Amino acid sequence: MARELVISIDAMGGDHAPQAIVEGTALAQIRIPKVKFLLHGDHAKLQQLMVPHQALAKVSQIRHCDDVVAMDEKPGQALRKGRNSSMWRAIDSVKAGEAQVVVSAGNTGALMAMAKFQLRTIEGLSRPAIAAIWPTIRGQSVVLDVGANIDQDARQLVDFALLGEAFARAVFGLERPSVGILNVGSEDMKGHEEVKAAAQTLKDSSLPIRFYGFIEGHDISAGTVDVVVTDGFTGNIALKTAEGTARLVGHYIRGAMQRSLFSKLGYV
Amino acid sequence: MARELVISIDAMGGDHAPQAIVEGTALAQIRIPKVKFLLHGDHAKLQQLMVPHQALAKVSQIRHCDDVVAMDEKPGQALRKGRNSSMWRAIDSVKAGEAQVVVSAGNTGALMAMAKFQLRTIEGLSRPAIAAIWPTIRGQSVVLDVGANIDQDARQLVDFALLGEAFARAVFGLERPSVGILNVGSEDMKGHEEVKAAAQTLKDSSLPIRFYGFIEGHDISAGTVDVVVTDGFTGNIALKTAEGTARLVGHYIRGAMQRSLFSKLGYV
Repeated sequence: MARELVISIDAMGGDHAPQAIVEGTALAQIRIPKVKFLLHGDHAKLQQLMVPHQALAKVSQIRHCDDVVAMDEKPGQALRKGRNSSMWRAIDSVKAGEAQVVVSAGNTGALMAMAKFQLRTIEGLSRPAIAAIWPTIRGQSVVLDVGANIDQDARQLVDFALLGEAFARAVFGLERPSVGILNVGSEDMKGHEEVKAAAQTLKDSSLPIRFYGFIEGHDISAGTVDVVVTDGFTGNIALKTAEGTARLVGHYIRGAMQRSLFSKLGYV
Repeated sequence: MARELVISIDAMGGDHAPQAIVEGTALAQIRIPKVKFLLHGDHAKLQQLMVPHQALAKVSQIRHCDDVVAMDEKPGQALRKGRNSSMWRAIDSVKAGEAQVVVSAGNTGALMAMAKFQLRTIEGLSRPAIAAIWPTIRGQSVVLDVGANIDQDARQLVDFALLGEAFARAVFGLERPSVGILNVGSEDMKGHEEVKAAAQTLKDSSLPIRFYGFIEGHDISAGTVDVVVTDGFTGNIALKTAEGTARLVGHYIRGAMQRSLFSKLGYV
């Protein structure tokens, strides 16, 4: 018997909360109709926002709380003072077993700190990671860590490989996702000690993981592997560099289109 | 009195050498007509290739040598066995004072090793860096290191800031280029110890350098600063990730254009 899936939502977290959160949840309800939702936040506002979304309202419960974690609040401060926040309460629903998943678009640092404090990590894993779903020429890949940690640590990289592999099986539905470690070259001798040690562990191990080896920056978008493993410092910079590059290319295209349009109009 | 500028060229290094190298040198001769060239490589082949480029031939000397450093040769091996290579000889012309600049499109690792061995670094600088000229929304920036080193080291980052600043003054002609350190956030508290220590040194210092502070990955293409300083591991991955992203966007656009073309043609 499949257990009923309940998603706990920080309805007040994020730049355009709570409106964007309610609208997003309504979209999710259409895409995955069997799921139920717990929305944490300002009861009156949320009830109002749900009026146009009756299908959502039917499968949702609103849990009132007064506080919101600010986007610029420091993680330590949020952890100490945020116990009445929508973010804390949303996580707490998972801890209490009322929901299986928590979603927040709010302050990332605070979310990592609160989630680690309340839920701990899976036994044997020292640190959580932030995973990004990255569009590729072949479809999509998962890249982690993209900023939860800033250390270079072989053990952490191995943990991220296991987490990412499980994510790709669960979310992408792949049977045997391939896993690569991001490096400055694909040869075994390249890179610093931590990436070399992590690769050695993944190669030697008897874990049922399809380890591809090292990949380079351009392999991420090429989709060379399903799971890209990297430290949070490098991953964060790679992700934001990619975003910046996409914006730059867009800028070039807009410029070219405008010039072409102007020349057609004879500069009127 | 301005000294005559002589550029020493490894005419045999690179994927499409020597033809692409001679053609590139001919273009350079048109753009910077007062410069002279020393081309190192196979005399007969180079002379043949220069027949269509008489303006270049007039300001060039060919220096014959028999060997070429292979693109996949290990730096240590190239250093030991490559003394008769076009790359070694091209660098040697600078050492001998016959040229002021050396250019090679060949094996990067071998070039770094040979250049460091023959020319040493400027006094006070421990390591050379590879600098990339990066297109931005504002024009161009210089990013370094993009792969000569793989260490995270505060002292090296400070050196790269000074090198990059001098490069931006000399090559971009800027009077007071701005310098930023690549990090996972722009706040002072973000990042690992090495980037924090380097930022502190650049801030405290009495050096005539316009230090902007930390920048993030998306700031590179935005052109937030003229000089982007980073360790070679992160810089190499950022550069290749940007290249991969540009290719991905190109792929999307081609796909969209083809679909649009096919729909106009009614799938004939």
